[in-house]
This record gives sequence, structure tokens and C-alpha cells, in this order.
Amino acid sequence: MKYASMSKVQLQAELAGLQAKYQEYCAKGLKLDLSRGKPAPDQVDLLSDMLTCVTKAEECVSPSGVDYRNYGIVDGIPEAKRFFAELLCLPEEYIIVGGNSSLNLMYDAVARAMLYGVVGSPRPWCREEKIKFLCPAPGYDRHFGICESLGIEMITVRMLPTGPDMDAVEALVNSDPAVKGIWCNPKYSNPDGITYSDDTVRRLAALKPAAPDFRIFWDNAYAIHDIYEEGRDELLDIFAECQKTGNENMVYYFASTSKITFPGAGVAIIAASPANIAQIKSVMAAQTIGHDKINQIRHVKYFGNAKNVFAHMNKLADLIRPKFEAVEQILAEDLADADIARWTEPRGGYFISFYTMPGCAKRAFELCKQAGVVLTNVGATYPYRKDPEDSNIRLAPTYPTLADLKAAMRVFTVAVRVATAEKMLSEK
Amino acid sequence: MKYASMSKVQLQAELAGLQAKYQEYCAKGLKLDLSRGKPAPDQVDLLSDMLTCVTKAEECVSPSGVDYRNYGIVDGIPEAKRFFAELLCLPEEYIIVGGNSSLNLMYDAVARAMLYGVVGSPRPWCREEKIKFLCPAPGYDRHFGICESLGIEMITVRMLPTGPDMDAVEALVNSDPAVKGIWCNPKYSNPDGITYSDDTVRRLAALKPAAPDFRIFWDNAYAIHDIYEEGRDELLDIFAECQKTGNENMVYYFASTSKITFPGAGVAIIAASPANIAQIKSVMAAQTIGHDKINQIRHVKYFGNAKNVFAHMNKLADLIRPKFEAVEQILAEDLADADIARWTEPRGGYFISFYTMPGCAKRAFELCKQAGVVLTNVGATYPYRKDPEDSNIRLAPTYPTLADLKAAMRVFTVAVRVATAEKMLSEK
Repeated sequence: MKYASMSKVQLQAELAGLQAKYQEYCAKGLKLDLSRGKPAPDQVDLLSDMLTCVTKAEECVSPSGVDYRNYGIVDGIPEAKRFFAELLCLPEEYIIVGGNSSLNLMYDAVARAMLYGVVGSPRPWCREEKIKFLCPAPGYDRHFGICESLGIEMITVRMLPTGPDMDAVEALVNSDPAVKGIWCNPKYSNPDGITYSDDTVRRLAALKPAAPDFRIFWDNAYAIHDIYEEGRDELLDIFAECQKTGNENMVYYFASTSKITFPGAGVAIIAASPANIAQIKSVMAAQTIGHDKINQIRHVKYFGNAKNVFAHMNKLADLIRPKFEAVEQILAEDLADADIARWTEPRGGYFISFYTMPGCAKRAFELCKQAGVVLTNVGATYPYRKDPEDSNIRLAPTYPTLADLKAAMRVFTVAVRVATAEKMLSEK
Repeated sequence: MKYASMSKVQLQAELAGLQAKYQEYCAKGLKLDLSRGKPAPDQVDLLSDMLTCVTKAEECVSPSGVDYRNYGIVDGIPEAKRFFAELLCLPEEYIIVGGNSSLNLMYDAVARAMLYGVVGSPRPWCREEKIKFLCPAPGYDRHFGICESLGIEMITVRMLPTGPDMDAVEALVNSDPAVKGIWCNPKYSNPDGITYSDDTVRRLAALKPAAPDFRIFWDNAYAIHDIYEEGRDELLDIFAECQKTGNENMVYYFASTSKITFPGAGVAIIAASPANIAQIKSVMAAQTIGHDKINQIRHVKYFGNAKNVFAHMNKLADLIRPKFEAVEQILAEDLADADIARWTEPRGGYFISFYTMPGCAKRAFELCKQAGVVLTNVGATYPYRKDPEDSNIRLAPTYPTLADLKAAMRVFTVAVRVATAEKMLSEK
């Protein structure tokens, strides 16, 4: 029965029943974690042969005789550039291959802009009175964390089913020169699982920023992370669109193998126009003697080509899919009748985005916590960790075992029902 | 015969003979490189088993069950902290284990100070009107490169046989609040091979900086890089000395395995007081998901303990020592009689520091270049790439084969004699 149709007495009875059930869960002493988008051990185990794919000295030497064990090559080995170019349909000359963390490349890109500016900057961003970034939300907490760490003001932009609300984006970017950036997670977005529509990508590429040095931070973290073989989302090529509009310097593109190979020991890239790459390399040359080239060649040798990566992604999807299906099934079983929440059913990525009725998310989070189920902090998906609606909860199904996941989800659905019933009763 | 005792005619005859010899070298079409402090292939080959020392999934899991293949642990795995603590006699809690590049940790430490300040800063360094660093010179070009990249004014301080000229250091640091840092390469310094005396270390620890946020950037790059088994240099413990003076926050300590294991795929650390480490970690948490933990465990497993590292360093020394001895022998054979230069005979590190008579280094460099022998750019060892005396040339003997090294050194000594004879004749 829909909660909205219940009388006070009915709701009170409902709550009493739920509380009994909730106490049963609490008594179980559960310790379950649905908080982080982290590959499960069985995913990581698929990669074990990567530990043995480069074992001989000669495998570390390039055809032209460059020893990848030694110093040098700040922007990544040519084999790795070719590998990522094929995998992500990027021009090789747009790519710098970095270390193991695309977050590190993103942070450094913003920090570099603060300290030096970017191509087209009249001055380093730290010399500006104020820097603002648009933050489509809900979004990725670590994007917002970079802004917060560096003192960049965050402006929340709504996420629509097509991507960021482009009317708002255009109005802000095209009028305010303090707006220097926008965080985009354009495919299977964190947490909503939304892939930007062609129209959204085209409108982003056609922005006419008031700032001469505005940048789109295009974190394509889930570029090839489909969950289902059928109905894969397609994302328009942002660089191709920007070339049409003469905005080729406007995009910094990021990706990594963190959720393809080893999360802690993968390979990350930044891709950008040749003018951007030249500026980034000039600073990088002062910053590092180069990233780990053995790990780069390890990745290239392990896969060989993009086709093998896609085959591997299908194996990962086979492990992940049942978990997403289980979450969606339990949500439907336990919550559909009450009509008190909505959630996404993404075709890829790492999250299911769950929306309680306004004002119920924090309470549901607390109830889960007390019952031993850890969720992503409520608010984490919004700038300054504040969800204005107190509604969004990011569910991360990949890491727990299927059994643990199902147990956690049963607690979660009861917690959501309790929180909602309490809220409605307090308003009756 | 000493050049200083030669008549003009004698010098002219000397030069004519040298030029003939020089032309012979030029005709050989040599292609030799003495420019970078880079381990040779035979050094790197000693490490081949490192590629196979972690091959099983279970080797990547900690005793407490943490999977080092997955995300997490921004400051390095405990095993790696223990390993470096034992190796470098540092307290474990002072250590953050990073990626493959200590230069990256140094650059980031300065960049972080620019963007956030350090413990004790009234404001981020980029908000100060001017930041100055003391640069003992000759020194490491990449230290100076970080300052130049970030717009930090460099003040040259003379290197004495005991380390930086401490009278100058004290006068500058203790009086000028714009002086926020000093670069130190305290053991087997680049390029002079000098190890700071106990008195120098104690005076550094006892500085009373005018700036409340002054930092010593203690790049202990050659901490255990002895060339000879006997007569190893000993460096006083900077942290212990700073604890006595209440200056424990004044030091950022850096080291890496770049010249122990693979130059391009080693492991680097930053060490500092707990208060500094807490501040660094708070920023690092926004910057990265953590460094490559598999490579950290690979290093720990390969060596097991410090004793095995020292045994390995002895093997490396056996490969390096003949090269240093050959350089020193050729310099003595070819230049001692003329009394036109001096050079260091270091007990460790990667360089021999060579001093021509004033005004002869650039010309000697050019002559070498034309004969196919590449030296470190003259001036590179000084701030702004300018040697005020035009005298210092950094010789890096490790990378070439012994035969190539000897061939290059013969060209070098002739070039130095030519350059000096030309100079002296121009002044007669």
C-alpha cells in the first residue's frame, strides 16, 4: 500500500511492524559496507596473470632500445599511448600516460591551473579573486573534494536524465568569467548512471565561456564499463565536437584502468589538445622524472589490444551484473508498493542512485549504520557534502559478496521505510 | 709543465699540439654521453628478479587481509614504512611512502606549500609577495628547476667542503622572512660528492628562521650510495638534531630507491614530523586514491630487510667504482701536470665535480660537444643555469660502458686543455 494513502493509524501500525523487523536486523550484529565504488576480490582475481606478464628484462626494452626500467619519458611510453588511443578512440598525440591514479591527474590539472594558469589564462588562477566550478549533482565526491581542498567555489547544477542541466550551464559559463571549470562524469555517471545525451555533449562543446580559460574536466571513468551486453550507452566524442566549434582547448579528458585492472596499481591518462598537452608537459618536466613505465608496458603486454580489454570487461560485467540485478530486485520487492522512493537502473558504471522522499536520507543512513550497514555518507554526492533535499543515497553494489549485498539491502529497505514512516507521522 | 709557467710561445706550441689531437678525436665520429646521473644497464640488470618477486595474488594481501591490489592507503603500506624506517634509520610514523619519483614528492611539497602553506604558515606561499629559497651551489639542477617553475627566487649559497656556507645560510635564513626554504643534498652531494659535516647539520638544525614556516628540503638521494667499502661518509641524523633544538617541523626529508632498484619504477618517500605528515596527508587525501601498493610490496619482498639492501648496494658499487677510478685516473694522467683544474674524488654518489679555470667551462663543453661527447650543460649546477665563474662541469660516469667512458674522458681532458690554453693566450 502506498504510504501516501495511509491514515495516521495505518502508518503507526506499519512503523511498529517495521521497527520490530529492524530490531531483528540489529540483533544480527551485521558488518556490511555498501559505501565505496570498489571492485570485488573476484574481479581483481581475474587479473592475476598481470603479475607475471612482464618477468624478463628484455620485455622492458622498447623495439628502438629504450630501457623502460630506467629514467625518462615524462609523458608515457608510445606503446601505452597507442593502447589507450585505440581503447578510447583518442588521437595518440592527445595523450599523456601517467601513474596509477586518474584522481591524481585531475587534482594536478586543477593545482597546475591554480599555480600557472592554463592555455589562454591571463594569469594563474590563484591570482584571481575568485574561482568557481560548476558541479553537476549528484556527482562524484572526490571531484568536489578537489575544489574544496583548493578553495574553489562550487556551484551546484542539477543532473537531468540527459546530463547536467544545460540551460543552467550555459547561463553560468557564458556570463560569469569567474566560472573556470565544470566537472563532468559523462558516461554512466557517478552516482546516477546517466550518459550525457548527444545534445548535451554538443551544447557543452558549443559553450562560449566568459572566461578565456574555462575547462571541462571530462572524467570518463566508466568509458567502457557496461553492465549489460545489450543496450550499451554511447557517448559522443567530445574532442570531435569541440573541433567543430573551435573549442579544442576547452577539454581535459581523464580515464584510467583502475576499474579494469588493479584499482590500486592501474594506469591513468590525461588527454587534451596538443596545445594543452605541451603546456602540461612543460610543467610535468619540472615535477617528475616520469611515471612507472614498467607498469605501463605491463598493461600493454597483458591486453595486447582493445579487443581483449572488451572481452575482459565482459567477464567483469558477468560478476557485477548479478549484484545490480539483486539490488534492483530487492528495491522493487520491498519498496515499490509503498511508493516512497525512486532509484536508477543504470546500464553501466558502479552505482545505483537512490532517492528517498525529501528529508529521509540521513535518518535512513543512521538506521543502517546502527544495524551495521555502512552506506556512502548522505550528502557526499553534493558540493560541500550537503544534499539540499536530504534525499540521495549512493548504493555501491560491487564490493560485497552477493549474499552480503542482499542482506545489506534488506536492512536498507527497512531503514528507508522506517525513516519515511517516521517523517510522515511527524507531519500528520 | 704547469700552464701558468709557460711563455706565450710555449702555450702556442702546446695549443697547436692539442688541436691536432682534438681533430683526431673529432674525426672518430664519437657519440658518448656523460650528462645524466643514470644507472647503467648492468646495474639495472642486477634487479631482474624483482620482476618475478610478486607473482601470486596472495602475495598482494597483507597479514591482516588488506588487498594491496585494491584502492586505499594514501600514505603507503605499513610493510614499506617499516622497510624504509629500518633502511634509513627513520621513525616509521615520520614516513609517507609515495610513487616512483622522489622529485615528484619534492615538487608536490613545494607546490603544496604554495597552495596551502605548511604547518606554521600564516598564509599559502602563493599569497606572499615573494618567496626565496637558498640554493647551495653547485647543486642539483632539478631542485633549481622546481623553484624556477614555481617562480621562487633562488639565492645562491657557496658549497664548502663541509656543506653549504653556514655563515651565509644563517645570515639569510635568520633575518629574511621571505626565505622559506633551502635545498640540501646532504650526503655525497650532487655534484660535489660532499657529505655535510656534523657541525653543518647541527647549525642547520639550530637555525632560527625569520619565517615561521621555513623548511629544509633534505634530499637524501645518496643516503646509502657508497662507492668504496672503506671510509664511508657518515651523515648526522637531521631529525634527531632538530628535536634537540625544538625545530622538528623544519625538515622535509626525501629519499627513493631510484638508484637502488629500477630508476623509473622504484619507490620514493617523504619523511617529516608527525605534525607535517598530518598536514601533508590531509592534502594528499584530496589528491590521490593512493600510490601503487603492489610496487611497494614488491620492493619489500625483494629485499626483505635493510641488510640485503646494503649487500645489493655493494654489488652496485662494484660496478660503479671502476668507472669513478677510471675518470680520476685519466684526469690525473692528463691534467695534473698542467695544474689547470681541480676535481672531486667522492666516496659515494653519482658524480665527479670538475672545475676548470674561471671562464673555460663553456668552451670545454662546446669542444666536447663538437667531438661527439655530451656533458651536463655548463651552468646546470647553478640557479638560473648560470655558473658565475663559468668553471663547474658535472661528470656523470655511471651510465656509459667503461670503454666509452675512457674514450669520452680522453676527449674531455684535451678539450679542457684547449679551452684553458686559448683563454690564457687571449690574456697574454
